[in-house]
Amino acid sequence: MELLEARIRKDGKLFPGNILKVDSFLNHQMDIDLLNEIGKEFYRLYQDCEVNKILTIEASGIGIACITAQYFHCPVLFAKKTKTKNIAAAVYKTEVKSYTHGTTYDVIVSKEFLHKGDRVLIIDDFLAEGNALFGLIDLCRQAGAEAVGCGIAIEKSFQPGAQRLRKAGVRVESLAMIASMDDGEIKFR
Amino acid sequence: MELLEARIRKDGKLFPGNILKVDSFLNHQMDIDLLNEIGKEFYRLYQDCEVNKILTIEASGIGIACITAQYFHCPVLFAKKTKTKNIAAAVYKTEVKSYTHGTTYDVIVSKEFLHKGDRVLIIDDFLAEGNALFGLIDLCRQAGAEAVGCGIAIEKSFQPGAQRLRKAGVRVESLAMIASMDDGEIKFR
Repeated sequence: MELLEARIRKDGKLFPGNILKVDSFLNHQMDIDLLNEIGKEFYRLYQDCEVNKILTIEASGIGIACITAQYFHCPVLFAKKTKTKNIAAAVYKTEVKSYTHGTTYDVIVSKEFLHKGDRVLIIDDFLAEGNALFGLIDLCRQAGAEAVGCGIAIEKSFQPGAQRLRKAGVRVESLAMIASMDDGEIKFR
Repeated sequence: MELLEARIRKDGKLFPGNILKVDSFLNHQMDIDLLNEIGKEFYRLYQDCEVNKILTIEASGIGIACITAQYFHCPVLFAKKTKTKNIAAAVYKTEVKSYTHGTTYDVIVSKEFLHKGDRVLIIDDFLAEGNALFGLIDLCRQAGAEAVGCGIAIEKSFQPGAQRLRKAGVRVESLAMIASMDDGEIKFR
Protein backbone atom coordinates (compact mmCIF):
# COMPACT_ATOMS: atom_id res chain seq x y z
CA MET A 1 0.00 0.00 0.00
CA GLU A 2 1.83 2.99 -1.41
CA LEU A 3 0.23 5.53 0.94
CA LEU A 4 1.35 3.69 4.06
CA GLU A 5 4.87 3.03 2.77
CA ALA A 6 5.27 6.70 1.90
CA ARG A 7 4.11 7.69 5.37
CA ILE A 8 6.52 5.26 7.03
CA ARG A 9 9.36 6.70 4.92
CA LYS A 10 8.35 10.24 5.86
CA ASP A 11 7.45 9.93 9.54
CA GLY A 12 8.76 6.56 10.77
CA LYS A 13 11.70 6.68 13.16
CA LEU A 14 14.30 3.98 13.52
CA PHE A 15 15.90 3.01 16.82
CA PRO A 16 18.52 0.41 17.76
CA GLY A 17 17.22 -3.15 18.12
CA ASN A 18 15.09 -3.14 14.95
CA ILE A 19 12.58 -0.78 16.52
CA LEU A 20 10.50 1.27 14.12
CA LYS A 21 8.40 3.95 15.76
CA VAL A 22 5.33 5.10 13.90
CA ASP A 23 3.68 6.73 16.87
CA SER A 24 3.03 10.02 15.13
CA PHE A 25 0.42 8.43 12.83
CA LEU A 26 -0.37 4.77 13.66
CA ASN A 27 -0.17 4.25 17.40
CA HIS A 28 -0.08 6.70 20.29
CA GLN A 29 -1.20 9.39 17.81
CA MET A 30 -3.42 8.10 15.02
CA ASP A 31 -4.09 9.69 11.66
CA ILE A 32 -7.71 8.73 11.17
CA ASP A 33 -7.77 9.45 7.43
CA LEU A 34 -4.86 7.05 7.00
CA LEU A 35 -6.60 4.47 9.20
CA ASN A 36 -9.62 4.78 6.93
CA GLU A 37 -7.54 3.95 3.87
CA ILE A 38 -6.06 0.99 5.75
CA GLY A 39 -9.53 -0.21 6.72
CA LYS A 40 -10.76 0.13 3.15
CA GLU A 41 -7.83 -1.99 1.92
CA PHE A 42 -8.45 -4.72 4.49
CA TYR A 43 -12.05 -4.78 3.31
CA ARG A 44 -10.97 -5.09 -0.32
CA LEU A 45 -8.76 -8.04 0.62
CA TYR A 46 -11.19 -9.88 2.91
CA GLN A 47 -14.62 -8.83 1.64
CA ASP A 48 -15.43 -12.32 0.30
CA CYS A 49 -14.58 -14.11 3.55
CA GLU A 50 -17.90 -13.61 5.35
CA VAL A 51 -16.16 -11.95 8.27
CA ASN A 52 -18.60 -11.45 11.15
CA LYS A 53 -16.14 -10.34 13.84
CA ILE A 54 -12.88 -8.44 14.05
CA LEU A 55 -10.46 -9.44 16.79
CA THR A 56 -7.51 -7.35 17.90
CA ILE A 57 -5.39 -6.87 20.98
CA GLU A 58 -5.13 -3.81 23.18
CA ALA A 59 -4.06 -1.13 22.86
CA SER A 60 -2.66 -0.01 19.53
CA GLY A 61 -4.69 -2.42 17.39
CA ILE A 62 -8.03 -1.04 18.57
CA GLY A 63 -8.11 2.09 16.44
CA ILE A 64 -7.36 0.30 13.17
CA ALA A 65 -9.78 -2.48 14.06
CA CYS A 66 -12.67 -0.10 14.80
CA ILE A 67 -12.18 1.94 11.64
CA THR A 68 -11.90 -1.28 9.60
CA ALA A 69 -15.05 -2.74 11.16
CA GLN A 70 -17.12 0.04 9.64
CA TYR A 71 -16.53 -1.50 6.23
CA PHE A 72 -17.43 -5.02 7.39
CA HIS A 73 -20.41 -3.89 9.49
CA CYS A 74 -19.36 -6.20 12.27
CA PRO A 75 -18.37 -5.77 15.93
CA VAL A 76 -14.80 -5.49 17.20
CA LEU A 77 -13.54 -7.60 20.07
CA PHE A 78 -10.26 -6.67 21.68
CA ALA A 79 -8.26 -9.17 23.68
CA LYS A 80 -7.03 -7.87 27.04
CA LYS A 81 -3.54 -8.26 28.35
CA THR A 82 -4.28 -8.79 32.02
CA LYS A 83 -7.11 -10.15 34.08
CA THR A 84 -9.04 -7.33 35.69
CA LYS A 85 -11.66 -7.84 38.35
CA ASN A 86 -14.22 -6.37 35.94
CA ILE A 87 -14.03 -9.13 33.38
CA ALA A 88 -16.25 -12.17 33.48
CA ALA A 89 -14.61 -15.22 34.97
CA ALA A 90 -15.43 -17.25 31.88
CA VAL A 91 -12.60 -16.36 29.53
CA TYR A 92 -10.43 -17.97 26.91
CA LYS A 93 -6.82 -17.41 27.87
CA THR A 94 -3.52 -17.74 26.09
CA GLU A 95 0.06 -16.72 26.79
CA VAL A 96 1.98 -14.22 24.66
CA LYS A 97 5.64 -13.29 24.77
CA SER A 98 6.26 -9.63 24.06
CA TYR A 99 9.21 -8.95 21.81
CA THR A 100 9.05 -5.23 22.61
CA HIS A 101 8.95 -5.55 26.37
CA GLY A 102 10.77 -8.83 26.91
CA THR A 103 7.99 -10.20 29.10
CA THR A 104 5.27 -12.85 28.94
CA TYR A 105 1.67 -11.95 29.63
CA ASP A 106 -1.77 -13.53 29.58
CA VAL A 107 -4.23 -12.51 26.90
CA ILE A 108 -7.92 -13.09 27.44
CA VAL A 109 -11.27 -12.72 25.75
CA SER A 110 -14.61 -13.36 27.33
CA LYS A 111 -16.26 -16.61 26.24
CA GLU A 112 -19.43 -14.59 25.74
CA PHE A 113 -18.09 -12.89 22.65
CA LEU A 114 -16.26 -15.51 20.64
CA HIS A 115 -18.18 -18.53 19.39
CA LYS A 116 -18.08 -21.63 17.26
CA GLY A 117 -18.91 -20.61 13.72
CA ASP A 118 -17.57 -17.05 14.03
CA ARG A 119 -15.50 -15.99 11.04
CA VAL A 120 -12.85 -13.79 12.54
CA LEU A 121 -10.56 -11.27 10.90
CA ILE A 122 -7.57 -10.55 13.13
CA ILE A 123 -6.21 -7.01 12.91
CA ASP A 124 -3.02 -5.58 14.35
CA ASP A 125 -0.67 -2.70 13.70
CA PHE A 126 2.60 -4.67 13.66
CA LEU A 127 3.79 -8.15 12.82
CA ALA A 128 7.32 -8.99 13.94
CA GLU A 129 7.76 -12.21 15.92
CA GLY A 130 4.10 -13.07 15.45
CA ASN A 131 3.52 -14.04 19.06
CA ALA A 132 0.47 -11.82 19.60
CA LEU A 133 -1.15 -13.11 16.41
CA PHE A 134 -0.51 -16.75 17.31
CA GLY A 135 -2.12 -15.95 20.66
CA LEU A 136 -5.21 -14.45 19.00
CA ILE A 137 -5.46 -17.44 16.64
CA ASP A 138 -5.23 -19.74 19.66
CA LEU A 139 -8.14 -17.87 21.30
CA CYS A 140 -10.20 -18.43 18.13
CA ARG A 141 -9.27 -22.11 18.10
CA GLN A 142 -10.33 -22.50 21.76
CA ALA A 143 -13.70 -20.95 20.90
CA GLY A 144 -14.17 -23.08 17.79
CA ALA A 145 -14.17 -19.88 15.72
CA GLU A 146 -12.39 -19.68 12.39
CA ALA A 147 -9.61 -17.13 11.94
CA VAL A 148 -10.05 -16.31 8.25
CA GLY A 149 -6.82 -14.33 8.22
CA CYS A 150 -4.75 -11.48 9.58
CA GLY A 151 -4.78 -7.87 8.43
CA ILE A 152 -1.52 -6.19 9.39
CA ALA A 153 -0.52 -2.61 8.82
CA ILE A 154 3.27 -3.09 9.02
CA GLU A 155 5.06 -6.40 8.63
CA LYS A 156 8.74 -6.63 9.51
CA SER A 157 9.43 -9.34 6.97
CA PHE A 158 13.00 -9.80 8.21
CA GLN A 159 11.69 -11.08 11.55
CA PRO A 160 10.28 -14.63 11.68
CA GLY A 161 6.59 -13.99 12.49
CA ALA A 162 5.13 -13.60 9.01
CA GLN A 163 6.85 -16.70 7.68
CA ARG A 164 5.90 -18.76 10.73
CA LEU A 165 2.25 -17.77 10.31
CA ARG A 166 2.15 -18.45 6.58
CA LYS A 167 3.88 -21.80 7.09
CA ALA A 168 1.17 -22.65 9.62
CA GLY A 169 -1.42 -22.04 6.89
CA VAL A 170 -2.60 -18.66 8.12
CA ARG A 171 -3.52 -16.06 5.52
CA VAL A 172 -1.57 -12.89 6.29
CA GLU A 173 -2.15 -9.65 4.40
CA SER A 174 0.32 -6.92 5.31
CA LEU A 175 -0.05 -3.47 3.80
CA ALA A 176 3.59 -2.45 4.20
CA MET A 177 6.30 -5.13 4.25
CA ILE A 178 9.70 -4.08 5.46
CA ALA A 179 12.54 -6.16 4.00
CA SER A 180 15.25 -4.48 6.03
CA MET A 181 15.96 -1.43 8.11
CA ASP A 182 19.74 -1.55 8.39
CA ASP A 183 21.91 1.54 8.56
CA GLY A 184 18.95 3.76 9.23
CA GLU A 185 17.32 3.01 5.88
CA ILE A 186 13.95 1.34 5.44
CA LYS A 187 13.65 -0.99 2.46
CA PHE A 188 10.24 -2.37 1.48
CA ARG A 189 9.67 -5.70 -0.22
CA MET B 1 -29.02 9.90 24.12
CA GLU B 2 -31.98 7.59 23.85
CA LEU B 3 -30.21 4.93 21.77
CA LEU B 4 -27.41 4.49 24.31
CA GLU B 5 -29.74 4.45 27.31
CA ALA B 6 -31.89 1.81 25.65
CA ARG B 7 -28.81 -0.29 24.95
CA ILE B 8 -27.60 0.02 28.54
CA ARG B 9 -31.04 -1.07 29.76
CA LYS B 10 -31.03 -4.02 27.38
CA ASP B 11 -27.44 -5.27 27.59
CA GLY B 12 -25.81 -3.62 30.61
CA LYS B 13 -25.05 -5.89 33.55
CA LEU B 14 -24.92 -4.80 37.17
CA PHE B 15 -22.47 -6.17 39.70
CA PRO B 16 -21.89 -5.43 43.39
CA GLY B 17 -19.82 -2.32 44.10
CA ASN B 18 -21.63 -0.07 41.61
CA ILE B 19 -20.06 -1.85 38.70
CA LEU B 20 -21.91 -1.62 35.41
CA LYS B 21 -20.56 -3.86 32.69
CA VAL B 22 -21.23 -2.83 29.12
CA ASP B 23 -18.61 -5.02 27.56
CA SER B 24 -20.92 -6.59 25.03
CA PHE B 25 -21.24 -3.30 23.11
CA LEU B 26 -18.97 -0.51 24.42
CA ASN B 27 -15.72 -1.99 25.65
CA HIS B 28 -14.16 -5.41 25.14
CA GLN B 29 -16.69 -5.98 22.34
CA MET B 30 -17.69 -2.80 20.51
CA ASP B 31 -20.80 -2.20 18.42
CA ILE B 32 -19.35 0.04 15.73
CA ASP B 33 -22.74 1.33 14.52
CA LEU B 34 -23.49 2.47 18.07
CA LEU B 35 -20.03 4.05 18.35
CA ASN B 36 -20.79 5.94 15.16
CA GLU B 37 -23.96 7.39 16.64
CA ILE B 38 -22.00 8.35 19.76
CA GLY B 39 -19.33 10.03 17.65
CA LYS B 40 -21.95 11.91 15.65
CA GLU B 41 -23.48 13.22 18.88
CA PHE B 42 -20.12 14.36 20.27
CA TYR B 43 -19.60 16.21 17.00
CA ARG B 44 -23.01 17.89 17.29
CA LEU B 45 -22.13 19.04 20.80
CA TYR B 46 -18.56 20.20 20.15
CA GLN B 47 -18.55 21.15 16.45
CA ASP B 48 -18.18 24.88 17.19
CA CYS B 49 -15.17 24.44 19.49
CA GLU B 50 -12.45 24.29 16.83
CA VAL B 51 -11.27 20.92 18.13
CA ASN B 52 -8.00 19.94 16.46
CA LYS B 53 -7.13 16.88 18.56
CA ILE B 54 -8.94 14.15 20.44
CA LEU B 55 -7.30 12.79 23.56
CA THR B 56 -8.30 9.56 25.26
CA ILE B 57 -6.75 6.94 27.50
CA GLU B 58 -6.03 3.31 26.69
CA ALA B 59 -7.66 0.95 26.19
CA SER B 60 -11.43 1.23 26.12
CA GLY B 61 -11.56 4.91 25.13
CA ILE B 62 -9.66 4.35 21.89
CA GLY B 63 -12.50 2.91 19.81
CA ILE B 64 -14.96 5.70 20.61
CA ALA B 65 -12.25 8.32 20.13
CA CYS B 66 -11.24 7.02 16.68
CA ILE B 67 -14.80 6.78 15.40
CA THR B 68 -15.55 10.26 16.79
CA ALA B 69 -12.42 11.74 15.18
CA GLN B 70 -13.79 10.96 11.73
CA TYR B 71 -16.40 13.66 12.26
CA PHE B 72 -13.86 16.22 13.48
CA HIS B 73 -11.23 15.30 10.86
CA CYS B 74 -8.52 15.43 13.49
CA PRO B 75 -6.00 12.96 14.90
CA VAL B 76 -6.50 10.90 18.05
CA LEU B 77 -3.88 10.76 20.77
CA PHE B 78 -4.19 8.09 23.43
CA ALA B 79 -2.48 8.43 26.78
CA LYS B 80 -0.61 5.33 27.92
CA LYS B 81 -0.82 3.81 31.33
CA THR B 82 2.77 2.69 31.76
CA LYS B 83 6.12 3.73 30.46
CA THR B 84 7.34 1.32 27.81
CA LYS B 85 10.84 1.32 26.43
CA ASN B 86 9.38 2.19 23.03
CA ILE B 87 8.06 5.60 23.97
CA ALA B 88 10.12 8.74 23.62
CA ALA B 89 11.71 9.89 26.84
CA ALA B 90 10.15 13.32 26.48
CA VAL B 91 6.69 12.81 27.91
CA TYR B 92 4.12 14.65 29.97
CA LYS B 93 3.23 12.50 32.95
CA THR B 94 0.47 12.52 35.51
CA GLU B 95 -0.76 10.15 38.18
CA VAL B 96 -4.19 8.55 38.12
CA LYS B 97 -5.93 6.50 40.76
CA SER B 98 -8.04 3.69 39.33
CA TYR B 99 -11.40 3.25 41.00
CA THR B 100 -11.93 -0.06 39.20
CA HIS B 101 -8.62 -1.65 40.10
CA GLY B 102 -7.80 0.12 43.38
CA THR B 103 -4.33 1.09 42.17
CA THR B 104 -2.43 4.21 41.15
CA TYR B 105 -0.66 4.38 37.82
CA ASP B 106 1.29 6.83 35.68
CA VAL B 107 -0.31 8.17 32.54
CA ILE B 108 1.88 9.62 29.81
CA VAL B 109 1.70 11.29 26.43
CA SER B 110 4.66 12.18 24.26
CA LYS B 111 5.50 15.88 24.23
CA GLU B 112 5.73 15.59 20.45
CA PHE B 113 1.98 15.26 20.08
CA LEU B 114 0.42 17.75 22.48
CA HIS B 115 1.19 21.44 22.07
CA LYS B 116 0.41 24.92 23.21
CA GLY B 117 -2.57 26.13 21.24
CA ASP B 118 -4.08 22.66 20.69
CA ARG B 119 -7.83 22.58 21.26
CA VAL B 120 -8.42 19.17 22.75
CA LEU B 121 -11.62 17.18 23.10
CA ILE B 122 -11.21 14.50 25.75
CA ILE B 123 -13.16 11.29 25.11
CA ASP B 124 -13.77 8.36 27.42
CA ASP B 125 -16.26 5.57 27.84
CA PHE B 126 -16.98 6.04 31.55
CA LEU B 127 -17.02 8.86 34.09
CA ALA B 128 -17.25 7.77 37.74
CA GLU B 129 -14.67 9.25 40.11
CA GLY B 130 -13.24 11.42 37.34
CA ASN B 131 -9.63 10.61 38.10
CA ALA B 132 -8.67 9.59 34.56
CA LEU B 133 -10.25 12.75 33.14
CA PHE B 134 -8.52 15.01 35.66
CA GLY B 135 -5.30 13.28 34.63
CA LEU B 136 -5.91 13.92 30.93
CA ILE B 137 -6.78 17.56 31.67
CA ASP B 138 -3.55 17.86 33.63
CA LEU B 139 -1.59 16.54 30.63
CA CYS B 140 -3.23 19.25 28.47
CA ARG B 141 -2.37 21.89 31.06
CA GLN B 142 1.27 20.78 31.16
CA ALA B 143 1.44 21.10 27.36
CA GLY B 144 -0.26 24.49 27.34
CA ALA B 145 -3.11 22.95 25.32
CA GLU B 146 -6.72 23.81 25.99
CA ALA B 147 -9.12 21.06 27.00
CA VAL B 148 -12.34 22.35 25.42
CA GLY B 149 -14.39 19.68 27.17
CA CYS B 150 -15.06 16.03 27.82
CA GLY B 151 -17.25 13.70 25.78
CA ILE B 152 -18.36 10.78 27.91
CA ALA B 153 -20.47 7.83 26.87
CA ILE B 154 -21.71 6.83 30.33
CA GLU B 155 -21.67 9.07 33.39
CA LYS B 156 -22.38 7.57 36.79
CA SER B 157 -23.88 10.76 38.16
CA PHE B 158 -24.16 9.32 41.67
CA GLN B 159 -20.39 9.16 41.91
CA PRO B 160 -18.47 12.39 42.49
CA GLY B 161 -16.46 12.75 39.26
CA ALA B 162 -18.93 14.64 37.06
CA GLN B 163 -19.71 17.18 39.77
CA ARG B 164 -16.03 17.68 40.61
CA LEU B 165 -15.21 18.32 36.96
CA ARG B 166 -18.10 20.74 36.39
CA LYS B 167 -17.24 22.60 39.61
CA ALA B 168 -13.70 22.94 38.29
CA GLY B 169 -15.13 24.69 35.23
CA VAL B 170 -14.75 21.75 32.83
CA ARG B 171 -17.46 21.26 30.22
CA VAL B 172 -18.69 17.68 30.47
CA GLU B 173 -21.13 16.21 27.97
CA SER B 174 -22.32 12.74 28.92
CA LEU B 175 -24.62 10.83 26.59
CA ALA B 176 -26.13 8.57 29.26
CA MET B 177 -26.31 9.79 32.85
CA ILE B 178 -27.06 7.18 35.47
CA ALA B 179 -28.73 8.61 38.57
CA SER B 180 -28.75 5.35 40.49
CA MET B 181 -28.34 1.65 40.04
CA ASP B 182 -29.62 0.33 43.33
CA ASP B 183 -31.45 -2.97 43.68
CA GLY B 184 -30.39 -4.08 40.24
CA GLU B 185 -32.30 -1.28 38.50
CA ILE B 186 -30.67 1.43 36.39
CA LYS B 187 -32.29 4.86 36.64
CA PHE B 188 -31.23 7.59 34.21
CA ARG B 189 -31.28 11.30 34.96
